[in-house]
Amino acid sequence: MGKEVKKIGVLTSGGDAPGMNAALRAVVRTALNNNIQVVGIKRGYNGLMNGDIRELKGKDVSEILGRGGTILHSARALEMLTEEGQKKAANIYKILGLDALVVIGGDGSFQGCKALAKYGVNCIGIPATIDLDISCSEYTIGFDTAVNTGVDAISKLRDTTGSHERCSVCEVMGRDAGYIALWCAMGGGAEEVLLPESKETATSENVIKQIIENRSKGKLHNLVVVAEGIGGSQELAKEIQEKTGIQTRATILGHLQRGGAPTALDRVRASEMGYMAVQLILEGNMNKVIAYNKGEYEAIDIEEALSMQKEFDPKMYEIVKVLSI
Amino acid sequence: MGKEVKKIGVLTSGGDAPGMNAALRAVVRTALNNNIQVVGIKRGYNGLMNGDIRELKGKDVSEILGRGGTILHSARALEMLTEEGQKKAANIYKILGLDALVVIGGDGSFQGCKALAKYGVNCIGIPATIDLDISCSEYTIGFDTAVNTGVDAISKLRDTTGSHERCSVCEVMGRDAGYIALWCAMGGGAEEVLLPESKETATSENVIKQIIENRSKGKLHNLVVVAEGIGGSQELAKEIQEKTGIQTRATILGHLQRGGAPTALDRVRASEMGYMAVQLILEGNMNKVIAYNKGEYEAIDIEEALSMQKEFDPKMYEIVKVLSI
Amino acid sequence: MGKEVKKIGVLTSGGDAPGMNAALRAVVRTALNNNIQVVGIKRGYNGLMNGDIRELKGKDVSEILGRGGTILHSARALEMLTEEGQKKAANIYKILGLDALVVIGGDGSFQGCKALAKYGVNCIGIPATIDLDISCSEYTIGFDTAVNTGVDAISKLRDTTGSHERCSVCEVMGRDAGYIALWCAMGGGAEEVLLPESKETATSENVIKQIIENRSKGKLHNLVVVAEGIGGSQELAKEIQEKTGIQTRATILGHLQRGGAPTALDRVRASEMGYMAVQLILEGNMNKVIAYNKGEYEAIDIEEALSMQKEFDPKMYEIVKVLSI
Amino acid sequence: MGKEVKKIGVLTSGGDAPGMNAALRAVVRTALNNNIQVVGIKRGYNGLMNGDIRELKGKDVSEILGRGGTILHSARALEMLTEEGQKKAANIYKILGLDALVVIGGDGSFQGCKALAKYGVNCIGIPATIDLDISCSEYTIGFDTAVNTGVDAISKLRDTTGSHERCSVCEVMGRDAGYIALWCAMGGGAEEVLLPESKETATSENVIKQIIENRSKGKLHNLVVVAEGIGGSQELAKEIQEKTGIQTRATILGHLQRGGAPTALDRVRASEMGYMAVQLILEGNMNKVIAYNKGEYEAIDIEEALSMQKEFDPKMYEIVKVLSI
Repeated sequence: MGKEVKKIGVLTSGGDAPGMNAALRAVVRTALNNNIQVVGIKRGYNGLMNGDIRELKGKDVSEILGRGGTILHSARALEMLTEEGQKKAANIYKILGLDALVVIGGDGSFQGCKALAKYGVNCIGIPATIDLDISCSEYTIGFDTAVNTGVDAISKLRDTTGSHERCSVCEVMGRDAGYIALWCAMGGGAEEVLLPESKETATSENVIKQIIENRSKGKLHNLVVVAEGIGGSQELAKEIQEKTGIQTRATILGHLQRGGAPTALDRVRASEMGYMAVQLILEGNMNKVIAYNKGEYEAIDIEEALSMQKEFDPKMYEIVKVLSI
Repeated sequence: MGKEVKKIGVLTSGGDAPGMNAALRAVVRTALNNNIQVVGIKRGYNGLMNGDIRELKGKDVSEILGRGGTILHSARALEMLTEEGQKKAANIYKILGLDALVVIGGDGSFQGCKALAKYGVNCIGIPATIDLDISCSEYTIGFDTAVNTGVDAISKLRDTTGSHERCSVCEVMGRDAGYIALWCAMGGGAEEVLLPESKETATSENVIKQIIENRSKGKLHNLVVVAEGIGGSQELAKEIQEKTGIQTRATILGHLQRGGAPTALDRVRASEMGYMAVQLILEGNMNKVIAYNKGEYEAIDIEEALSMQKEFDPKMYEIVKVLSI
Repeated sequence: MGKEVKKIGVLTSGGDAPGMNAALRAVVRTALNNNIQVVGIKRGYNGLMNGDIRELKGKDVSEILGRGGTILHSARALEMLTEEGQKKAANIYKILGLDALVVIGGDGSFQGCKALAKYGVNCIGIPATIDLDISCSEYTIGFDTAVNTGVDAISKLRDTTGSHERCSVCEVMGRDAGYIALWCAMGGGAEEVLLPESKETATSENVIKQIIENRSKGKLHNLVVVAEGIGGSQELAKEIQEKTGIQTRATILGHLQRGGAPTALDRVRASEMGYMAVQLILEGNMNKVIAYNKGEYEAIDIEEALSMQKEFDPKMYEIVKVLSI
Repeated sequence: MGKEVKKIGVLTSGGDAPGMNAALRAVVRTALNNNIQVVGIKRGYNGLMNGDIRELKGKDVSEILGRGGTILHSARALEMLTEEGQKKAANIYKILGLDALVVIGGDGSFQGCKALAKYGVNCIGIPATIDLDISCSEYTIGFDTAVNTGVDAISKLRDTTGSHERCSVCEVMGRDAGYIALWCAMGGGAEEVLLPESKETATSENVIKQIIENRSKGKLHNLVVVAEGIGGSQELAKEIQEKTGIQTRATILGHLQRGGAPTALDRVRASEMGYMAVQLILEGNMNKVIAYNKGEYEAIDIEEALSMQKEFDPKMYEIVKVLSI
C-alpha cells in the first residue's frame, strides 16, 4: 500500500482513439470513489507544460462513455522530447501537487512517461491507439472500433463492387503496422491484403495474379485491402484496371476509422483499464503500463514495456488467403 | 385498361443505388400476384441485347429488400446509344414475348427507354440514383441512404477532428449535382460546402475566410464538405493548412456511399414505385417514368420527363451558412 | 415585418423525439445570427410556469445536432390545462420580456400554444413526435428515425426467425396511430401488420390465416408487425403458436424507438423548421405551426392546425399485403 | 497425420448466433482448399437423422460472412437424446461416407458429439452461442455481436430516459448466465445489474436503494440492466415507480440480440475456428472442441470440455458499481 493519494492528473496523448473517453471516465469515477481529486490536463503533454488544466468532477464525465474522440483533446508535444520540456512538465506536476499522472496513449506517449519518471513523476500508462502498435499489449483501446468501421465500409463497397462486377481497392489505417488491414481483410472477406510486415510479397504482380486466378474460378468481383504503411492505392487500382481490364476503384478510409462511438469491447476494456490505473496508484505501484495479454490484465514496468517487441503472426494472413477462394 | 399482360422484363441500369433490389422485389411480387411472368435481365441493357436473362420467381427476391446493390447487376451499355443496339434490344424483347419492360435507373437509362419506345417496346422507368440528378422527380431511390452514409461518416470525422482541433475536408459523391453534398453538409453540421451549382463562390479563398472567421468566434475545429463535381479535396486541404496553419485532412468517401442496406425511406418508396410500375402496365399506361413530386407519385411521359429541368434552390445553402456559426 | 425582436424563448414538450435537438440548435443559431437573445426553457411548459430557464449561447448547442433526446428535457404539464397554469406561464413570459415562444412538440403541446395566445403570448409550433400523429403536417420530426430503428430491429429478428423457421411478432410504437407500424411493416418486409386504423381486420384469425397461407406457398418463416395501439403481442404470439404449431416469439420495441441519433432526413427537416420558426418571428407572423405538406414547408394558423384531420390512406396497407407473398 | 479425408459434414445446432455463417464459410472453404467434399446438414441433428442434406460448394457460402443467422437453419433435436436417435444419426453419417462431422453450437450440441463418438463418428465442436455459457471456452461465437446490440439499444434508451428524467429497466438475453447482462451494463453505463450468478443481491430493494442514492448525488435519470435469468422486468419497473415516484419503463430486448450482422471480432474468430476445425480433421485429431482461452485457440477433448466448470468473476460487477456513481 502506498502513501495516501489525494490528487491525480490525467491526459490523453498522441492520435485519438474511440474509447479514450471511456477510460477517462473510469479514471475519474474510480478516483472520486476513493476521495481522490482529479485534474484533467488538456491537449496531451502540452497542457501539462502550460498548465492548461481543469478539475474533473463526476458530472464532467457523464454521457462520454459512448462518445468517440477525447474531451480532453489530444496533440503531439515536440517539446516533451527535450530535457527542458520534461523539466517544465515535471515542475508543473509538483506545483499542482499531483500524486500521480495517468497517460492514455501509445508508445510515443509512454516515452514521455519514462522521461518524466526520472524527475519524480509517478506515471501509469493506458494503451490507446487504433493501430494496435503498442509493443507490450495484445489489446489497445480503439482497435476493435476501427476494425469494425473498416469492415462496415468494406461491406458497403462490396455491394456496389458486386453490382458492377468490379474490383475494389480499400486502403485502411494502421501507420507502419498491418493489424487493422489484416483484421479488415478477414472480417471483410477480402481476397488479398497488402501488409507492411511482408513488403516483399505485397506487390501489384501478386495482387493481379490472384485476381485473375479468382476470376477464372468464377468470382465476379474482387476486393483488395491495402495497409496505410504500403499505400499507393490509387496507383494500384489504376494498374489493376490497365492490366486486367477489370474496372477498379480505390477508396481510402483515412480518419474515418479514428472516430465513431466505441464498440462494447472497447468500452469495457477501457473502463477496466481506467479502473485498474487508479487501483495501481492506490497500491503505490507506479510507473507501469497496463497491458492485456493472454486474456488478462497485467501491469508492466514502463521501461520494460517500451523495450518489448511485438511479433507479427503470419498465420492470420495464411487463413485470409485460404478463405478467399 | 390495356390488353392482357402475360410477361414482363425488368432490368437495373447505370450506377447502382441502395433500394434497387427493393424496387425489383416489388415489381416481381406485384407481377406474380397478377399472374404475370417476370424475366430478370442482367447487366442493364447489355443483358437485353445479349439475351442474358433468367426468370424471377417469388423466392428469387426474398431476402433482398434490405440488401444494397442489385442482384441483376448493372452496367453502362454504349451499344444502346447506336441504332443497331436499339434494334437488337427491341428484337430480343419481341422474341421473349415481353409485354413491357421496367427500367430501374437514371436519366441515361430513360434515354434508352425513349429510344426503344420507337421500336414498339413498352417501357416504365423507375428513378434510381444516389445523385438525385433525375430531372423529373424530387425523389430518387438511393439518395436517402447515400446521404445517411455521408452524415454518418462526417460524424466520425468530427470526433477525431474535434479531438485534435483540426479541419476536415470531406468529399462526397453526386457527379455534377450538389444535392448529396448539400444534405450532408446540413445533416453533418458543416460550416462550408462547395457545390458545382455555385462554382463562382466555391473557392478556397471563401472557405479559408470562413474558417478563420469561425475560429475567431471560438470554434475549435472545422468541417468542409466538397461535392464530387468540384473535387480537388486533397489540394484544398493542403491550401487550408498552408494558409491558416490549421492541420487539415481530406477524406474522399467515394463508392462507400453507393453501398449499404437501404434506409427505411428508400425501401418504402422503392417498394411503392415497383408496385406502381406494374399497376401502370396493367392499365396499359406505357412509356412513363414514375416520379415523386409534391408528396405524391405521378406518371410522366418519358419524353416529357427527359425534357424537364430541375432547379437548384439556393435556400438550403443559405441555411447551412446561418447554422454554421 | 413585425416590431423589433430582441428575445425569444424555446422549449421542447411532450414525448421526446430524435431531431428535437437539431431543431433547437437551428432556432438558437438563427436567432443569434439575427441578434436575438435566446432563453431555453426546461422540462416543457413546467419550466415556463416555474421560471426553470437558462440562456442559450451558440456554444450550448454545438455537438447536439446528432444527439437523440432533448437537452432541454421534456415533460407533460398538467397544470397547463388549467386557466391558472396558463396565466402563470403567460406572466413569466412577460416578466422575461420574451417577444415570442418556440414550442417543439406535438398536438398536445400546440394546445398549450393556443391557450397562451389568448394571453398575448406569440407562439410558433414545430411538429415533433415519432408517432406522426400531428394533424396538420405530413412530416413530423423523429418519425423517420423511429421507423429506421424499427426496420433495423425487424431485420435482426428476421435473421433468427429465419434460422429457426419461426414466426416473429414485433410490436412497434405509435400510440393510437399506425404510421410507424405501417412503415416498419413495408420497410421490414412483414407479411401482416395490425393497425388501430383498421381494427376490424386486425384480428388474430386473419393473421393466422395469412401465416398458414404463406407457409403453404413455401415461406419458411413469418413476420407480423403489431402497432402499439393494438397491443397484445404476447397473447397473439401465444395464440399463433397454439393454433399453428409454429414456434412464435413476441418482441416489444418500446422506448428504444424514441432514442438514437436522428437520421439525415430528421436532421435536415428539423434544422430547416428551426430556421423557419425564427424567420416567421422576424416577420411578425405569429401563432403559427410549421408544417411540411406536398413537399413544401408552410405556416398554418395554430387554431386551424389543431382543427385539421389527417386521413389514413389504405393504399400502403394494400401494398404491404401484395408484397408479402 | 490421419488417414486421407475425403468428405465431411457440417451442421449448426441449438440457438443460432451471429457468426455461425462465418464459421460455416471457413469450414467449407478450407475443406475445398484441401480437396475435401462438404455436405451441409440442415436443421441441426434433425437433418443428420433424416438425411436432410445438400452439398456445399464454394459459391454456396459466398456473401454469407456478414449475414446473421445460419443458412443451414438450426433446431433442437430431442430425438438425439435417445439411443435410437443417436444410432440413426451415426448410421446416416456412415451411409454418407463422412470422415468427420463439424458441429457449430453450444454445450447441448456437444453432448450430441459425445454420444455420437461412441458410435464411431468423428466430431469437432465449434463453440457458438450468444450467451457465452460454454464451459470450456472464454469466447463463444455471437457473444460480441449480442453485447454490441445490447449496448446500442441501451444507448437509445438512455437518450429518452435522460430527456424525461426517468428510470429505464432493460432486460437482456443470456439464459441462466449473466455474461451478456454484465457486459451490457458496463458497456452501457448502467448503475445496477441483476445477475443470476448473485441472486441474493439481485433484489428490488437493492436496486431502489441504489437509485435513490444516485438521485441524491444529482443523477437525473437511471438505468438498470436485468439478466434474462432473473427476469421480471415489468414487475421491477412497476415497483420502482411505486416506491420512488420516478417514472420507470421496462424494455425486453429478447430475440433482437440473436440477429444482426456479426461484428468484426465474431467474423474473425469464427473464421479462424472454422479453419482450425478442418486442420484438426486433417491431422486426425478428432473428437475435440475448439476453445479460445488465454488469448489462444486450443483443442480440448469433448468429454473433458463438457466436464469443465466456468467460474464467474465478481470483479467486473464491482467495477460496474464503482463506475456508476
